[in-house]
Amino acid sequence: MENDDVVYVGSKPVMNYVLAVVTQFNSGAETVTIKARGRAISRAVDVAEVVRNRFLNNLEVKDILISTEKVTSERGESNVSSMEITLGNKPE
Amino acid sequence: MENDDVVYVGSKPVMNYVLAVVTQFNSGAETVTIKARGRAISRAVDVAEVVRNRFLNNLEVKDILISTEKVTSERGESNVSSMEITLGNKPE
Repeated sequence: MENDDVVYVGSKPVMNYVLAVVTQFNSGAETVTIKARGRAISRAVDVAEVVRNRFLNNLEVKDILISTEKVTSERGESNVSSMEITLGNKPE
Repeated sequence: MENDDVVYVGSKPVMNYVLAVVTQFNSGAETVTIKARGRAISRAVDVAEVVRNRFLNNLEVKDILISTEKVTSERGESNVSSMEITLGNKPE
């Protein structure tokens, strides 16, 4: 699992993360995993779709995982959903 | 693919959709697909996670698909991300 990179999606504009993913592939990454929690999950899907449709057409979705993480804040523990989308090159 | 049902997630509270999914499984559905577009995608992940963790522990995620749909509005065409999460019983 060398050359694998991760991009964490937060509340910045979609294009910031798109650029980060494209840059990692152009630097030799074989797969890039896009991770997000809570409301940023929708944005993570946008990032994956924009990268695939507009920038790197030879990519496919290798895997998508969803899970629940516990977050501790002043108000105590709460659960937050998280998602990981792994993109990689299509088999030749 | 009989006994397959679909729940569309929109802007209502998560528990509304959780109840819809649980009801379909209790009515004999073998799989239920949770669909959402745009910002509702985050909520769809919440629905899947709450159903699995709090209500029906024998379920697993069978498949997750992401795609882009064209939406036509007054301002012309735009793209919106969409997601489908399929839940079903774990193999026995």
